Amino acid sequence: MENENFSELIQQLLEERKFTRLRSILLEMMPIDIAMLFDEFPEDDLPLIYRILPKELAAEVFACLDSDSQEQLILAFSDKELRIVLDQMYVDDTVDLIEEMPATVVKRILAHTPPEKRQSINEILKYPDDSAGSMMTTEYIDLRRDMTVSEAFEKIRRVGVDKETIYTCYVKDRNRHLLGVITVKTLLLAPSDAIIEDLMDTNIICVDTFEDKEVVAKMFDKYDFLALPVVDKENRLVGIITVDDAMDVIQEETTEDFEKMAAIMPSEGEYLKTSVFKHAKSRIVWLLFLMLTATFTGMIITQYEAAFTSLPILVAFVPMIMGTGGNSGSQSATMIIRGLSIDEISLGDFFKVFLKEAGVGVLCGTVLAVVNGIRVYLTADEHDLYLTIVLGITLIMTVLIAKILGCVLPMVAKLLHLDPALMAGPLVTTITDTCSVLLYFLIASSMANMFGVPLI
Amino acid sequence: MENENFSELIQQLLEERKFTRLRSILLEMMPIDIAMLFDEFPEDDLPLIYRILPKELAAEVFACLDSDSQEQLILAFSDKELRIVLDQMYVDDTVDLIEEMPATVVKRILAHTPPEKRQSINEILKYPDDSAGSMMTTEYIDLRRDMTVSEAFEKIRRVGVDKETIYTCYVKDRNRHLLGVITVKTLLLAPSDAIIEDLMDTNIICVDTFEDKEVVAKMFDKYDFLALPVVDKENRLVGIITVDDAMDVIQEETTEDFEKMAAIMPSEGEYLKTSVFKHAKSRIVWLLFLMLTATFTGMIITQYEAAFTSLPILVAFVPMIMGTGGNSGSQSATMIIRGLSIDEISLGDFFKVFLKEAGVGVLCGTVLAVVNGIRVYLTADEHDLYLTIVLGITLIMTVLIAKILGCVLPMVAKLLHLDPALMAGPLVTTITDTCSVLLYFLIASSMANMFGVPLI
Repeated sequence: MENENFSELIQQLLEERKFTRLRSILLEMMPIDIAMLFDEFPEDDLPLIYRILPKELAAEVFACLDSDSQEQLILAFSDKELRIVLDQMYVDDTVDLIEEMPATVVKRILAHTPPEKRQSINEILKYPDDSAGSMMTTEYIDLRRDMTVSEAFEKIRRVGVDKETIYTCYVKDRNRHLLGVITVKTLLLAPSDAIIEDLMDTNIICVDTFEDKEVVAKMFDKYDFLALPVVDKENRLVGIITVDDAMDVIQEETTEDFEKMAAIMPSEGEYLKTSVFKHAKSRIVWLLFLMLTATFTGMIITQYEAAFTSLPILVAFVPMIMGTGGNSGSQSATMIIRGLSIDEISLGDFFKVFLKEAGVGVLCGTVLAVVNGIRVYLTADEHDLYLTIVLGITLIMTVLIAKILGCVLPMVAKLLHLDPALMAGPLVTTITDTCSVLLYFLIASSMANMFGVPLI
Repeated sequence: MENENFSELIQQLLEERKFTRLRSILLEMMPIDIAMLFDEFPEDDLPLIYRILPKELAAEVFACLDSDSQEQLILAFSDKELRIVLDQMYVDDTVDLIEEMPATVVKRILAHTPPEKRQSINEILKYPDDSAGSMMTTEYIDLRRDMTVSEAFEKIRRVGVDKETIYTCYVKDRNRHLLGVITVKTLLLAPSDAIIEDLMDTNIICVDTFEDKEVVAKMFDKYDFLALPVVDKENRLVGIITVDDAMDVIQEETTEDFEKMAAIMPSEGEYLKTSVFKHAKSRIVWLLFLMLTATFTGMIITQYEAAFTSLPILVAFVPMIMGTGGNSGSQSATMIIRGLSIDEISLGDFFKVFLKEAGVGVLCGTVLAVVNGIRVYLTADEHDLYLTIVLGITLIMTVLIAKILGCVLPMVAKLLHLDPALMAGPLVTTITDTCSVLLYFLIASSMANMFGVPLI
């Protein structure tokens, strides 16, 4: 669908007050698509068009809206409208909503939330932002182990409409300890008088409330679960996490990795909605740090002033050496950081990785040295053999150093429980720059005599 | 669990032939964990330990093994064993298996696959590697629209055990056209004599067999589906894609983006299992290209030989300018590429993005110019005002150019239907280098007179 034109059509129908036509169009759309359309709307029109939707769809759409639109709507809602929406929303979505709203709006939301739901919300709100507890919902189906399959189905039918997922059910004892897990598939394929205890899976994979979000998301990726139970320190079931939330975390964490690897301090919020000032703030710290670090490279160059004033062409190759070192280092750092993040590489593989990168460094360095040598040999006016050899050695060593730094730094970060993504391209490049420029001038001056090049 | 020690324990039990103990340990593990353990094992022990597992679990583990272990096992299997595994495996897993095996093994696999499954496999194999068709499975539950809920449950009970998901069922007409979708949740919450046609959802989101994998994965992320129907050109239902496969695609595509953005040609296969030669091959092309491109920057420097031989300190700032430009450009390119990839930014936002980046560029550039100015003013022996001003202007303009290139290049790539990830850090850096060095020397030489600096 042509988004631009479609949005205009809706706008036009709204202006012409053709609500029946508008409603029938919206009814054929998915809630998230309606929400994305609404987010583009002028704020004043929002309550009007929102009220065209039937109650249930409206609540679903509300949960998908961005926080600005949600706030706008809540301010326009009557108490009754607010109660209807809050009643329909899942606990985890309500928590997300509360986290984004200003205090006065939060007060109003809590005032219109039924007491038992309010308790669940407060429960979830107390977990740290990046923990499993903050991702979970308390709306799951629990069964008793002595139920029959048909009793289980009765319970599912009775309470299922309010639960985020009904396909995985949890079996608890009196003390809320998790005894087993059973899927609706197992229930459907079993005879109706079978006992839950005999059918349930007791090899339970669950996570602690304080487990890191990223670890939780990786478990979904690995085990292909639809839902994962969350337990507290006493192994009592407190909630579940569903696969759709895990997918969102994977996307968020990946974005954060991309940002860190490009020397940006991770920021929340969408690109277009973040102000220029905020964008600048999240980028300037690393830029400043790296700029001051690059000063070392400059200081090294000043040491060799005499060398390059007597043979100025030496300077012409500095960008090429720095660029190649930086690119080689970024390649390795990226491979290793990604490998660590998807568990393809672990700290135990340190030596394997080191040897591999060293090998790749020598291979790539040699190819680059040869190609560059041919180019220099063909184009340089004088000292071509000297330059070819100096540059060749420098290139091989630079690429080797870059590849080694690119794999060692992220792994050392991991060892120190820092985020490997911080050791990406920009930092590796800056360190490589210093090493490669130093090497270059060292090699150039020490070989000058050998080739009878008049370097001071 | 301590992976290292655990693996040793298993090895020891195997050597001591304590199969009962071994079996009871394995039975408490998830199939994927058993598979990861087996992948570490010496190839010769693999068939032995595999045969300890009960049939069904064995087949599940087999589907999770890496292709080397799978091949090893197939070679050791009797025809009967092979048939059992193939019988238990889902069609999409079998397709993945076939794609990795050598021709002789494929022949043997197909010979022991039941005819109707073989047909489905051949169907899927004919779709291109990165299409929805290649991701799908043909094992879904289809219902007729005139069935009652209890008839539907009967069918699910009858055929469900072989289906990859039973939770979303598909309603087709006689010509296999998709009429509607219905979830087991809806079925469970409906009265048993209700008719499917009245319950099913007819707002169907489906994908074409030739749709790009990445687009499919994004749809899962957006709509929070558990399964998505795949239709052919005539709108006939040919298969479904499940959320676990979508998650794998998201991870693969992200890895590919990371690689492309670090100037690596995407390669398949895990890091540790790829040879040094292959790693080098996927990295050398971009390194060569970028090295030769960096020559332009070198050529510019040679043009200003006279300038820097008369004021050598000018050269000392080249690394700092190049580094800052490169880092600034990488930051923008990364933000924009990621934004485009998760649909936070679209081509229609071009001017908004351009202005934002330009603003960020001026802000960051100014801060850097001031900090650098203070440093130079405090440390330089002579010409400090001249250097402060020249470097200040150069820094602001360099950061501005880098930020603009960093947002324009990925968006232009997208416009030309190229992958924006190709326009990442390394390329932006190389182009920025050339511009910034040129600018630097231009500004330095044109302002020399003004400050009475003896530049030739």
